[in-house]
Amino acid sequence: MAKRVVSGMQPSGLLHLGNLFGALDNFMRLQAEHECFYFVADWHALSTNYEDTARIREYTREVLIDWLATGLDPGRSTLFIQSRVPEHAILHLLLSMITPVPWLERNPTYKEKQENLEGRDLSTYGFLGYPVLQTADILLYKGDYVPVGVDQLPHLELTREITRRFNALYKTVFPEPQALLTEIPKVPGTDGRKMSKSYNNTINLSDTEATVRAKLKTMVTDPARVRRTDKGNPDVCPVFTVHKSASQQAVIDRVNKECRTAEIGCIDCKGLLADALVARLTPIWEKRRELVQMPKLVDEVIAAGTTKASAVARQTIAEVNAAMRMG
Amino acid sequence: MAKRVVSGMQPSGLLHLGNLFGALDNFMRLQAEHECFYFVADWHALSTNYEDTARIREYTREVLIDWLATGLDPGRSTLFIQSRVPEHAILHLLLSMITPVPWLERNPTYKEKQENLEGRDLSTYGFLGYPVLQTADILLYKGDYVPVGVDQLPHLELTREITRRFNALYKTVFPEPQALLTEIPKVPGTDGRKMSKSYNNTINLSDTEATVRAKLKTMVTDPARVRRTDKGNPDVCPVFTVHKSASQQAVIDRVNKECRTAEIGCIDCKGLLADALVARLTPIWEKRRELVQMPKLVDEVIAAGTTKASAVARQTIAEVNAAMRMG
Repeated sequence: MAKRVVSGMQPSGLLHLGNLFGALDNFMRLQAEHECFYFVADWHALSTNYEDTARIREYTREVLIDWLATGLDPGRSTLFIQSRVPEHAILHLLLSMITPVPWLERNPTYKEKQENLEGRDLSTYGFLGYPVLQTADILLYKGDYVPVGVDQLPHLELTREITRRFNALYKTVFPEPQALLTEIPKVPGTDGRKMSKSYNNTINLSDTEATVRAKLKTMVTDPARVRRTDKGNPDVCPVFTVHKSASQQAVIDRVNKECRTAEIGCIDCKGLLADALVARLTPIWEKRRELVQMPKLVDEVIAAGTTKASAVARQTIAEVNAAMRMG
Repeated sequence: MAKRVVSGMQPSGLLHLGNLFGALDNFMRLQAEHECFYFVADWHALSTNYEDTARIREYTREVLIDWLATGLDPGRSTLFIQSRVPEHAILHLLLSMITPVPWLERNPTYKEKQENLEGRDLSTYGFLGYPVLQTADILLYKGDYVPVGVDQLPHLELTREITRRFNALYKTVFPEPQALLTEIPKVPGTDGRKMSKSYNNTINLSDTEATVRAKLKTMVTDPARVRRTDKGNPDVCPVFTVHKSASQQAVIDRVNKECRTAEIGCIDCKGLLADALVARLTPIWEKRRELVQMPKLVDEVIAAGTTKASAVARQTIAEVNAAMRMG
């Protein structure tokens, strides 16, 4: 029987190259082999953005358009929006009753993220409990596999602990979701830090060719290479790091060699990267243009995905209620 | 416009005299004046009973039968079951995002109840968050009034704080629920402690006349009155306390006088109380018998209440989503 994969993405901004190389490419590979449930986690987005919800709805739609434009296939994968399936909230509530607070408090990203996102008050009950909601998201579809990077393994371990506790307290309803450990390539943004909407350093899937080229021109490079004639070190150059995700092997090899010898300058190197990105993004842009002109089609895809997800979710809640002798 | 009253009752056991004199009598008074939403809080029952859910479903039905038998009128009040209205879980999830954990930690009953209910692990996320669920229960119906005893005022204050926070962050969707401060008579159980299912000292609305009389016979009285000829002190006698809720004023006055003079003994006094209770409970028993023989009628009442509650709840969630720019 086909194994189920469940994963979500928060609509906290427009999708960018970091999401493409880090997650979407993987989503695409997985949909070829497994039965995939991919959802836009708009309720999750509230956990860090509850004070500014103005664009969550807009971003939710943009994420879905980006998914379709990139090649996620609603004929193969179930693509849907979390908040359209109220069973996520029901299972979250039920699991909240059996999840010990200390398990949540020792979640390593809890305090870390609170500290990193300065200026936002994240001492909320929902932020503390987001692993409970995450667990509900996965269990609702009886996910066998969850694609995660190594830094997310502690979350998945927490999900597995909550799963075991439910199965032990009531009845074995859920498989214990397994990690599909994914090597997530580092994608630096234009300022050299990790590409992230909160750093305002992203190249978005919805940017135009001109914008992509303009953003690349301002991108930081090996800081020791000041003049065209200076020899560069690709190992410390953020532009080279993006090449490794975006360019053909021949181009990567060439840049790796000719930067070190100063045969090419940063402008040349960025031109090569721009060409590679434009080649990669052009089919996405074309599909995007089509989709933006067919809002009804997007609506239909969302409606169909919601219907498919809801049917599975309702069935799971019925089994949960039977196991807990509720409802 | 009619004011809305919202209140719930946990199905953690069969209803008893403490529930009748402490809550149901008040529910009945309120339904004469206000638009009342009364629900069986089966999801709440999980917060303390998640390890033993075997009888929640059965008790849920029994509570509804007790309500109808006692005189709650489904033509006047909306009577329903919390878990049949998924919007409770949705609003709980949304409010969780804006509720600071410290507000919940300083809830005075949180640690108190954890300590009192020995042998149960109540360090759960759901137990910490039950004021969030309680707030969702009230706000979903835009409750103007919530009947509470003085010991529950801190909870309602927390509900009001969460309400203000929602209205301030997004838009004024909710009235701030006001306390309808209710003097809740103390109803001692057969062992003299507060009547409570966890003490196994209750006289239930579903007990037979023989059981009520038998339980009263074993009920503790003024411990200093050992012999029939000893003079008693009604002020310290649990049986007299129940008289004050259950008996006619003339009987209360008589017992208060003739116990002190030893004109009547404890057996006489308990006989008077038994008669008063049987008089009060007989119409409830008759109605109960009818209802138990008409399970379809009970089903219909539940279905109709759920339909009415759901319509209001859906409308509220639509307003909440609009205010938060979600959905």
